[in-house]
Amino acid sequence: MDEFSFIDSIKQQSYGQTSLIKGVGDDAAVFRQSNQDIVTSVDTFVEGIHFARSTMSAFHVGYRALAANISDLAAMGATPAFYLASIVIPKSWPMEEVTQIFAGMQELARYYTMDLIGGDTVSGSELTLSITVIGYTDKNKARYRSVSEDGDVAFVTGTLGDSRAGYHILTNPGTYTNEPYFIKRHQMPSPRVDFAKGLNLLSRVALNDISDGLANEATEIAEASNVTITIEDNLIPTSLSYGQFPENLQHKWKLYGGEDFELFGTVSKRNWKTVSDIAYQTGTPITRVGFVRVEEDKSGVFLNKNGKRERIFNKGYTHLK
Amino acid sequence: MDEFSFIDSIKQQSYGQTSLIKGVGDDAAVFRQSNQDIVTSVDTFVEGIHFARSTMSAFHVGYRALAANISDLAAMGATPAFYLASIVIPKSWPMEEVTQIFAGMQELARYYTMDLIGGDTVSGSELTLSITVIGYTDKNKARYRSVSEDGDVAFVTGTLGDSRAGYHILTNPGTYTNEPYFIKRHQMPSPRVDFAKGLNLLSRVALNDISDGLANEATEIAEASNVTITIEDNLIPTSLSYGQFPENLQHKWKLYGGEDFELFGTVSKRNWKTVSDIAYQTGTPITRVGFVRVEEDKSGVFLNKNGKRERIFNKGYTHLK
Repeated sequence: MDEFSFIDSIKQQSYGQTSLIKGVGDDAAVFRQSNQDIVTSVDTFVEGIHFARSTMSAFHVGYRALAANISDLAAMGATPAFYLASIVIPKSWPMEEVTQIFAGMQELARYYTMDLIGGDTVSGSELTLSITVIGYTDKNKARYRSVSEDGDVAFVTGTLGDSRAGYHILTNPGTYTNEPYFIKRHQMPSPRVDFAKGLNLLSRVALNDISDGLANEATEIAEASNVTITIEDNLIPTSLSYGQFPENLQHKWKLYGGEDFELFGTVSKRNWKTVSDIAYQTGTPITRVGFVRVEEDKSGVFLNKNGKRERIFNKGYTHLK
Repeated sequence: MDEFSFIDSIKQQSYGQTSLIKGVGDDAAVFRQSNQDIVTSVDTFVEGIHFARSTMSAFHVGYRALAANISDLAAMGATPAFYLASIVIPKSWPMEEVTQIFAGMQELARYYTMDLIGGDTVSGSELTLSITVIGYTDKNKARYRSVSEDGDVAFVTGTLGDSRAGYHILTNPGTYTNEPYFIKRHQMPSPRVDFAKGLNLLSRVALNDISDGLANEATEIAEASNVTITIEDNLIPTSLSYGQFPENLQHKWKLYGGEDFELFGTVSKRNWKTVSDIAYQTGTPITRVGFVRVEEDKSGVFLNKNGKRERIFNKGYTHLK
């Protein structure tokens, strides 16, 4: 397969977004958006750093990379619209495998009617996938980390630690309960787009997606809002068979594991009922896990566990976002 | 320098675009644009493939990469507004050098009041820079390759072959006339934004930027518009001291050299005067180099040279755009 056939094979035959004027096929793509705010973000994934072929098929590499990007849009309360995908292809990757990366992205993109409107294909020594996503929010309804307030309820969607547990299963052969569930959570995460979109009803909610672990995401909100967030350890939601893993790993994964692509947020007590209703309507499990306080000269995240309150720190990595 | 200091060092302290609502610092950036169409494109540059440290300082790597992206916007008739920059950093690149890549981008970005609104910083084995640019055009004034028509005048801005000549000087030590000029054209190309923006006056102009060589860009317009484009070899504009290089190289570079980031376009004879006026007003050298014909069942580019007409082919590479 040469480069022309490759590009033909990944090019969309038709587009779903009505705001698109020109997709792939010129020097750049063109769209128009007069009624909503535009949200954009980029993430880059490198083989051996962000994924390994031993635990991810090419299809899953693409699927998960786009899911991670869509999750950033969800964390802003935005609905996905477009993506641009740049890929560095080493000789060791046959083009047929590379098309599977695009098939994985397309599978998820189709679900959200996202259009692939640009990209670049270059050779290099290391498979690198860089995805830029563009989405829309209602005007002034983008969700920031900096709006958390004293008295807020802190919540998370779904269950935490599952992706890391799936990775553990893939890298530590053995007998596990609900193996396919954990593996799917690792390879094909579901960003919480519908729920985030539903939150449009509210005037204020602080939101972050859990890409680098609950401790990290909560810390980002606490620091941006200059508040403390206290999380009750026994309230952190985990899945049914999560208890099969050693306790120290359970603790580590649910707080620092990351890549679950659930949402963490805070909202006023008064609006907690509305948030729960939106979660119910969008089929999103949601759990109240703690509370927000303004404490003099202090910001950060604290964990209440076995009657003790201890500060927990950001152990994730950082991006320019 | 750790990653936090690095990100702090490249983060803009203030933003220049009035359409920007939220820059770096959350899950994604947010902007609003109700009055213009939005244009976006991505390009990826890999060390050893797109640039070598022997011919490019880190500063130039960044400057030229952003220039190439801005040139794509110019080719759409768009004004640059934002960029997102993802970088894969190998251990062999000290962080101080990497900040120079960003300094190079910032130098050019400042000139256009472009804001850096996102990015990602990851480690890997090979320096890879992926830039997404976002710009604006007046509504329905994006410039496509597909609108070239029978009887059009074909033109190019500036002079061709200079970038490739600069690269030749850098890789073949010797004595050359106007060395700094050619080297600057290679390391710090100037995209033709003002001229492209000036063309907004016109209802129709086909436009492409010369990133992969005149032959390639003209072919793209000819194929997209289903026309033939004939170029007069002796009209292709070259710079004053270009004649110092061997004739076969002169021929090769001006047609296939690429990376001059000039513009190639076609416009009706009636509007050629207006295009010349816009070029004059924006300080842009412009040259009429050929003409467009509709010929039955034929599309492609022909070169008139020494009384002979020969077909020339696309020898560039291709991107998903």
